[in-house]
Amino acid sequence: MSDATLTLTVSCPDRVGIVARVASFIAGHRGWITEANHHSDASTQRFFMRNVIRSESLPFGSDALRERFAEIAEEFAMDWNVSDSAVPKRVLILVSKADHCLVDLLHRWRSGDLPCTVVGVVSNHEDLRAYTEWHGVPFHHVPVTQTNKAWAFDTLCEIHERAGADVMVLARYMQILSPEVCRRYPGRILNIHHAFLPSFAGASPYQQAFDRGVKLIGATCHYVTEQLDQGPIIEQDVIRIDHSDAVADLVHYGKDIERQVLSRGLRYHLEDRVLQNGHRTVVFR
Amino acid sequence: MSDATLTLTVSCPDRVGIVARVASFIAGHRGWITEANHHSDASTQRFFMRNVIRSESLPFGSDALRERFAEIAEEFAMDWNVSDSAVPKRVLILVSKADHCLVDLLHRWRSGDLPCTVVGVVSNHEDLRAYTEWHGVPFHHVPVTQTNKAWAFDTLCEIHERAGADVMVLARYMQILSPEVCRRYPGRILNIHHAFLPSFAGASPYQQAFDRGVKLIGATCHYVTEQLDQGPIIEQDVIRIDHSDAVADLVHYGKDIERQVLSRGLRYHLEDRVLQNGHRTVVFR
Amino acid sequence: MSDATLTLTVSCPDRVGIVARVASFIAGHRGWITEANHHSDASTQRFFMRNVIRSESLPFGSDALRERFAEIAEEFAMDWNVSDSAVPKRVLILVSKADHCLVDLLHRWRSGDLPCTVVGVVSNHEDLRAYTEWHGVPFHHVPVTQTNKAWAFDTLCEIHERAGADVMVLARYMQILSPEVCRRYPGRILNIHHAFLPSFAGASPYQQAFDRGVKLIGATCHYVTEQLDQGPIIEQDVIRIDHSDAVADLVHYGKDIERQVLSRGLRYHLEDRVLQNGHRTVVFR
Amino acid sequence: MSDATLTLTVSCPDRVGIVARVASFIAGHRGWITEANHHSDASTQRFFMRNVIRSESLPFGSDALRERFAEIAEEFAMDWNVSDSAVPKRVLILVSKADHCLVDLLHRWRSGDLPCTVVGVVSNHEDLRAYTEWHGVPFHHVPVTQTNKAWAFDTLCEIHERAGADVMVLARYMQILSPEVCRRYPGRILNIHHAFLPSFAGASPYQQAFDRGVKLIGATCHYVTEQLDQGPIIEQDVIRIDHSDAVADLVHYGKDIERQVLSRGLRYHLEDRVLQNGHRTVVFR
Repeated sequence: MSDATLTLTVSCPDRVGIVARVASFIAGHRGWITEANHHSDASTQRFFMRNVIRSESLPFGSDALRERFAEIAEEFAMDWNVSDSAVPKRVLILVSKADHCLVDLLHRWRSGDLPCTVVGVVSNHEDLRAYTEWHGVPFHHVPVTQTNKAWAFDTLCEIHERAGADVMVLARYMQILSPEVCRRYPGRILNIHHAFLPSFAGASPYQQAFDRGVKLIGATCHYVTEQLDQGPIIEQDVIRIDHSDAVADLVHYGKDIERQVLSRGLRYHLEDRVLQNGHRTVVFR
Repeated sequence: MSDATLTLTVSCPDRVGIVARVASFIAGHRGWITEANHHSDASTQRFFMRNVIRSESLPFGSDALRERFAEIAEEFAMDWNVSDSAVPKRVLILVSKADHCLVDLLHRWRSGDLPCTVVGVVSNHEDLRAYTEWHGVPFHHVPVTQTNKAWAFDTLCEIHERAGADVMVLARYMQILSPEVCRRYPGRILNIHHAFLPSFAGASPYQQAFDRGVKLIGATCHYVTEQLDQGPIIEQDVIRIDHSDAVADLVHYGKDIERQVLSRGLRYHLEDRVLQNGHRTVVFR
Repeated sequence: MSDATLTLTVSCPDRVGIVARVASFIAGHRGWITEANHHSDASTQRFFMRNVIRSESLPFGSDALRERFAEIAEEFAMDWNVSDSAVPKRVLILVSKADHCLVDLLHRWRSGDLPCTVVGVVSNHEDLRAYTEWHGVPFHHVPVTQTNKAWAFDTLCEIHERAGADVMVLARYMQILSPEVCRRYPGRILNIHHAFLPSFAGASPYQQAFDRGVKLIGATCHYVTEQLDQGPIIEQDVIRIDHSDAVADLVHYGKDIERQVLSRGLRYHLEDRVLQNGHRTVVFR
Repeated sequence: MSDATLTLTVSCPDRVGIVARVASFIAGHRGWITEANHHSDASTQRFFMRNVIRSESLPFGSDALRERFAEIAEEFAMDWNVSDSAVPKRVLILVSKADHCLVDLLHRWRSGDLPCTVVGVVSNHEDLRAYTEWHGVPFHHVPVTQTNKAWAFDTLCEIHERAGADVMVLARYMQILSPEVCRRYPGRILNIHHAFLPSFAGASPYQQAFDRGVKLIGATCHYVTEQLDQGPIIEQDVIRIDHSDAVADLVHYGKDIERQVLSRGLRYHLEDRVLQNGHRTVVFR
């Protein structure tokens, strides 16, 4: 028996009868639900739902499911999506010189822990080419200078399109994407910020954390928007430090929390667990 | 508008159409679902569900809901329950001399953080009478000796029945309940064990933990069964210790984790978030 | 044998030979060191030390120790202090209406888990009088209005002085102390802020946290200075929340983390584990 | 200025004057102490100390330090050691097929986060050869069968000796070392066990954890002794799971906690932070 699943996610104005309608639709086609999550948001009065259906239990595929569901979606004014585990999302990873997030993502992908296809790595430096290519993943060197930014970001988008990428992951990429790129892929670019946002946005967050004398440092995985480090937060975590830790120690220990938070946030995204709710996110874990 | 809710919990053999049937039933009566959780357990092939429904949205009360739902329940061979937030569960607390869990539970109850009615405190010592009575809660001294156990546990059950208690909470009660008591209230007696079970069951868990040299100590809230410290686990947590901590320090720091784990486990039980799945539990948080 | 100890804390410019000099001084008087912590701070080039000495091992008391140590202290330009566990610090607690921190502190004090004497509770409301007085602790109602602040804070200081208090603890006290009070007791006023500073300083931190969509909320225990929520941080911690938590839930769950962080921070202060290092702290745990 | 340091670790019967004697010795040679930790163990009445001294501050090297310190060591009946950060410990890693710990250790070593030299990888399978060799590390395939164990473990020891290894790290090596190997390298073989010991020793700990219905799973890094999974514990940690996690999920999530606990435990060992105290450990973090 195949493990393949179809995942239906829905967000719409809250009212009575949504679950009944959707569940009856699925049951009407003998769909076997293996996971279901609901959330009624009191502050926005919106309803969020995620259903994972065993593909084999349905008499048709994802396209037919989309076609048949469209009517319900319209009736309830839904934002909705159907994704097929047999068609994993395609991921483009952006890095600079730091390799800890890249090593982690490539390992999780290779060992099947991240349900995706890594279609390429883009970097403004050459340092991580050999490691990337050992994994059989194309490596693209796109240098970014003060004067070539328009070209560089165009090239980036071109690589993204040509590779058929669904998601762009900034895995400690040390350049700020242009507003154009941010607008082009809304809700499809993930970043890892090396601080517990909203504390210490911007540059040198570990130095900022050290100067303020905090007792925990953190990392934040968020969607990228035009406002630097202000996008909707997907996942965060922290670790304890103390007075004996210098800035270099924070950088060092921070790597652990950065890679964990990024890989969790990315996994939630790849598994369609993240639904945007205005500036906040619903994360069905 | 009232915040009162009815909570419907269900456990039954898994099959297609359960959610559709239950959700349609609720929606058919215009029931407004504020929280819903599902779980399909692959290992036991059972399905678990919890629905919280706004009382005001239904045209009838909890008794009518039970009456009308009975047919569906029978069709799907459900273990099921409806509870009404307007009728909070009645809790009897058992203590010995240690007061940290009692202080915590009484405070959470008084400040409305634990949805229950504390109907009494039973102790085999007199020490905690004044504190209990200051809160307006009846205190029952039931001494337990080598020779009076049958009488003592009969008295305990009598107090429980007379107070109309639904739940018995062993808040660091240092006596082992008789098998008769355990069998009388299955799934209705909660205990806090001061170790991360299954490590260090039985007496002096902190001494055992110290001797083994573990780097974390924990606490476990579980249902009481006839097998000492073997009942289904509801909640657990741990804290870090190190070589500088003597047994007395473990006892000291352990209090914090004990009261947190107990209050969380009890809250899950009071809010009908815990469903037994054989020897394990489903906890819809 | 008595458990009494003398604690010597020292902070001075770093150089070779400090430990040798201090340890030789203590050993020269047959002092038995039960705990010792050192820290050399590279960024400020200062050295920090804490030695706990068994009182009975010394041929003299705390006054004589101070007298004899003064020479070394001068030689190394030390900020230093000797405190005697037989003379516990005297604590004045400030509260408003929320009782969770007060209940926790009084319980820890009564059960011997916090080495201090609680000399009084001051509040701008009457709500917590009965609970405080049940513990045999004097309760002072000092109302604060738009127009009586000068009088109110004078009265507060008067109560502090008359009670011979060493430490003032703001246990969810909802008034901002005047600059005069802050300056009068530098490093002797502790506050619990219900957010993970520097995020969400100021009013309504839980609402701010909700609006930003963070995935963890926290609390911060810090020394009070004239700059609101900017004082040196002693202790912090966080707990995980998710999209299903409304602001009221954050307030609710936050109580747990507030009382833990406050009681830990206060214990560190009472045990002379906290040494100020400019705007940061050294906390010898 | 060089960052090189000498680390002096000491364990001896506790008495007055040890710190004074050692600190005076170091200061007498103008040694600059950058880190110092002490612990007096009340249960064994032993004293433990770790001093990190800047190499450049001493007028001589590690050999001369050892020579001169020997007299003090004898006087106080010390177990002691001096190690030189300029001579990093040599590590031999043992693996089977699972690569998550190996990937993590090689990455930390390459990026300078683990102060050691990885001198080789030994495996009873060929799977991880290419990845290991890409890092320029020799890979040794030593198959283990029911009948060749004596030969296999002899070969292992031979590789260890020839490589001049100081530490053997079982990074999810799925064979049980013979008692001879265990006895040959006491306190020099580290293992990662994929459970929170003493719970779930032996085989299939995740299945055991699932069957018992625990709410947290963990990992334990410990020294290997002849008693399987009973050696002194260096480091442990846990992560939260819930009813929705199948055994495969525990295996999956467990990888994260395994690699973290192993790398922390190994780092503590490499930095001479771990001192054995009978069956327990002192870990100066």
